[in-house]
Amino acid sequence: MKALDELVGLLSRLPGIGKKSASRMAFAILKADGAYADLLADRIAGLRDRVRFCRECGSYSESELCEPCSSVARDRRLICVVEQPQDALTIEAAREYHGLYHVLGGLISPLDGIGPETLGIAKLTKRVRELGATEVIVATNPTVEGDTTALYIKRSLESLNVKVSRLATGIPVGGDLEYADRLTLARSLRGRTAL
Amino acid sequence: MKALDELVGLLSRLPGIGKKSASRMAFAILKADGAYADLLADRIAGLRDRVRFCRECGSYSESELCEPCSSVARDRRLICVVEQPQDALTIEAAREYHGLYHVLGGLISPLDGIGPETLGIAKLTKRVRELGATEVIVATNPTVEGDTTALYIKRSLESLNVKVSRLATGIPVGGDLEYADRLTLARSLRGRTAL
Repeated sequence: MKALDELVGLLSRLPGIGKKSASRMAFAILKADGAYADLLADRIAGLRDRVRFCRECGSYSESELCEPCSSVARDRRLICVVEQPQDALTIEAAREYHGLYHVLGGLISPLDGIGPETLGIAKLTKRVRELGATEVIVATNPTVEGDTTALYIKRSLESLNVKVSRLATGIPVGGDLEYADRLTLARSLRGRTAL
Repeated sequence: MKALDELVGLLSRLPGIGKKSASRMAFAILKADGAYADLLADRIAGLRDRVRFCRECGSYSESELCEPCSSVARDRRLICVVEQPQDALTIEAAREYHGLYHVLGGLISPLDGIGPETLGIAKLTKRVRELGATEVIVATNPTVEGDTTALYIKRSLESLNVKVSRLATGIPVGGDLEYADRLTLARSLRGRTAL
């Protein structure tokens, strides 16, 4: 069945989708009413046209400036630095943050030939200065590259009068000590908070 | 981000796809090259036009007759009865079966108001007679409805000189006794085979 196989092949190229899930999805599309398949196809085809990058911060946006950058309700003295555009959306979804974003587009990784200049950290420094930011929250992942990048950003901003912070690492809410790895547990001990 | 949210909403209506997986898929589509998104959209939109049902057996097919039904290499005296069109494809993928199929389109379920007449078991009897089938393999799921339907088929074919068999139930290959449920274990004992 070429039509099904082709679709399964395409779907299984998506992250987290194996051949089995792709098959189930394809069968569901086949069995759903035609309007669903047409709408899904239309939205997939149009996604890249509708979504672009914010001119200011590099987040995903449907207009020239993203929602946070164009909002007057945001705290413009707070900048959250993220690795990828989608990280900004993930943080938005938590509904806890009310400042602006800055997308690096990667992390410092000498082995992959990605240095500070590739990530445009100079642009971040410039924004910090222009906005008169009081705090930069580095929200890169708690990995070697994420930590290295965070440290580099901290040093780059040392001459400016700005606080640089990092997302807390520790045991996830609802998590279980038993399943926490050694490094997470060690970090959660070091970062313990007073009750 | 309306464009992303819409796509995530549509994707998460597919089976086994939660909001998190749908998000990851949407981001991957956004980050992939445009040709991928266009191809995926095209295949989704075209799927229902390209795939229809075999006139003979009710399996999915890209032409009037499905591959098994139109093949001369198949054993036309062997009929495998399945619940859904996709079950035939699943069995095909095992590359072990070389007969024809018959799709019921459901299982007998008095509570849901699905009786033998809805499933067109009369059509099956007619095919068995016309093809001069020697064996009917009932490959419905090993559930109450699947078992009931299998028994009903056995009784419907009693007047015809045809062997009626059922897929073996037991512990999956590579499975672990410890994780087998009581019913599966009981069935695998009853159905034990000589070494």
